[in-house]
Amino acid sequence: MRFICDSTQLSEAMATVSKALASKSVMPVLEGVLARASGSGVSFCCTDLKMGIETVIPAQIAEEGEVVLQGRLFYEITRRLPEGNVEIAVTTEGENAGAVITAPGLRTRLFIMDAADFPALPVVENAQRIVLPGKSLRDLIRQTAFAASLDESRPILTGVLLEINAGRVRFVALDGYRLAMCDAPYDGEVQGMKAVIPASTLTRLAGIVGDSGNVALEIGPSHVGVDVDNTRLVSRLLEGEFIRYEQIIPQDYTTRAIVDQAAMADALDRAAMLARDGHSNLVRLRLADAKLYMTSNSESGDMYEEVPIQLEGKDLEIAFNARYLVDIFKNIGAGTVVMSFTTNVSPCILRPEASSNTYLVLPVRVYGA
Amino acid sequence: MRFICDSTQLSEAMATVSKALASKSVMPVLEGVLARASGSGVSFCCTDLKMGIETVIPAQIAEEGEVVLQGRLFYEITRRLPEGNVEIAVTTEGENAGAVITAPGLRTRLFIMDAADFPALPVVENAQRIVLPGKSLRDLIRQTAFAASLDESRPILTGVLLEINAGRVRFVALDGYRLAMCDAPYDGEVQGMKAVIPASTLTRLAGIVGDSGNVALEIGPSHVGVDVDNTRLVSRLLEGEFIRYEQIIPQDYTTRAIVDQAAMADALDRAAMLARDGHSNLVRLRLADAKLYMTSNSESGDMYEEVPIQLEGKDLEIAFNARYLVDIFKNIGAGTVVMSFTTNVSPCILRPEASSNTYLVLPVRVYGA
Repeated sequence: MRFICDSTQLSEAMATVSKALASKSVMPVLEGVLARASGSGVSFCCTDLKMGIETVIPAQIAEEGEVVLQGRLFYEITRRLPEGNVEIAVTTEGENAGAVITAPGLRTRLFIMDAADFPALPVVENAQRIVLPGKSLRDLIRQTAFAASLDESRPILTGVLLEINAGRVRFVALDGYRLAMCDAPYDGEVQGMKAVIPASTLTRLAGIVGDSGNVALEIGPSHVGVDVDNTRLVSRLLEGEFIRYEQIIPQDYTTRAIVDQAAMADALDRAAMLARDGHSNLVRLRLADAKLYMTSNSESGDMYEEVPIQLEGKDLEIAFNARYLVDIFKNIGAGTVVMSFTTNVSPCILRPEASSNTYLVLPVRVYGA
Repeated sequence: MRFICDSTQLSEAMATVSKALASKSVMPVLEGVLARASGSGVSFCCTDLKMGIETVIPAQIAEEGEVVLQGRLFYEITRRLPEGNVEIAVTTEGENAGAVITAPGLRTRLFIMDAADFPALPVVENAQRIVLPGKSLRDLIRQTAFAASLDESRPILTGVLLEINAGRVRFVALDGYRLAMCDAPYDGEVQGMKAVIPASTLTRLAGIVGDSGNVALEIGPSHVGVDVDNTRLVSRLLEGEFIRYEQIIPQDYTTRAIVDQAAMADALDRAAMLARDGHSNLVRLRLADAKLYMTSNSESGDMYEEVPIQLEGKDLEIAFNARYLVDIFKNIGAGTVVMSFTTNVSPCILRPEASSNTYLVLPVRVYGA
């Protein structure tokens, strides 16, 4: 195998695919990147078996072939190449076996692994194909994935439900303490589809999707394939039934507070800092007199904040895990937010005025019902 | 104690003094910041007993007094205050004892410690006073402190020698494997002075000194005091005789290579990466044919670089700890660098063409003498 390509395109390709690189794998080949030269381009592919990313860059190919290079090291080298052309020549057999990277003034030889040992990316069969603007997809991911669970004991909760119905695509994530549900318009042909995509896959996907252009998702029974420009990501889907989330979201409320996102985010940032210091991580809210009074405390002191609100309905005292509220107000978007409560042991619903997104957070029981 | 000050000035003051905050101290009061309101200003002071920093900001003082607040927490709070005025009111006795921080919409109460327990910054007596432009001082620190030792077993090597003689101020640092020596012009009255300042003190000082203005250093027999605008830093000096560094620097050479700093820094960056991967951290140089050939290797591969040079004298093969060369070429400044060698087991001297600075690095013995 031998080819010449542009060093900047090479390092950008490696930055993309290395997101799927297994960090410490029992299979050494998974710490590698598969490079394959054919036709007028070279593809690079990394996978941790749960998901994989492949990208193609143009190259002048003198000899076709494929090889596996040590992924992390090859990426670090590509980041440090001088601008311009770089040649990569691979000898697979004999005492000169290795990949030689040549650029003006430098030559690096890396040991190689056998391409035959590298697992192929799964083919997504019987897929339904949906196309979304990149920006929509990124927003859906950013506004929901943070609420998925990190606890592998209930795998389904580590995923984000993608659901298509009635002219909209919906993402839902929940971890048993909070829920995030976001919609975007969808005018394609696919209807009534559901799939649960690992949140970690979506977070890495959001790092690849650009501001412009469309993204195509092929969703099969067990895998999803995503095409972004010259890059393809394939990930397994999570098996099992997602929680019936509609039942969790209360429709009624007895107290409603209309708050400014920035004012709440700032106040929560300060209160959460003291709450963290105290390990309880608790923030208490009292709604009364057109004010939201926020308190937190630790052995080092206590903090008291007042946020002006529009208050409808009954006064209320309620407590939350500070981190959950901080996460929501960081991701909910700028503008006005409507918080709806029933009792101080029932879920709080948060909806930004600017969208149809819905967030839910369970209170911590410190007051009587 | 009660005062009103500007929240931005307050958080900047805390950013400055918290550089001297002890992270985990056996004396809880050293994790605190001493705040003292008197006259028309409030001073803040942190110390880890080895060094301390005090800074003063203007304030409207309603009641004079002093108190110790938990340093890290108070700093984090000041960073999150809204812009504008903030009031700090301290009650030292009774059940309301504490410091109450009030800004529009928020009120935080922090527990306090007794100011009487806070160690005073040492007074620098019998001092000689030198004044240097801030930029000169910062450059001297940046270009030398990295070469000081981190090993506390020979404390004197963890310091930087400051030496005034013949119209120049000189900083020298060395750790047994490398040396950095930098001069700046000095036209003050003090002459023939020496002091060894802890490198960690200087690194923190460099973070306080701005681009413009002068810095005054008061150097006494056991302590140094530094005044930068409204900030004073006091540090102990290191005791004992500094190494007689002039004897270490060879005057002759048999091989001289003139290299470009940027080309060498780039090549070393790449070679050091592979050297790091191989744990030996070794980079080998071969000087011949108007080229510097650089090689490094590990179990993952090997790297070969060519850097164009002007070569005078005999060809040479020599090996170095890659990190030492990387450090020097990162700090030596842009432009042309002259590297002088005698044998491959003798020190290499590096001098930038643009200054009178001198760097020395010992080779690693891998070739015969």
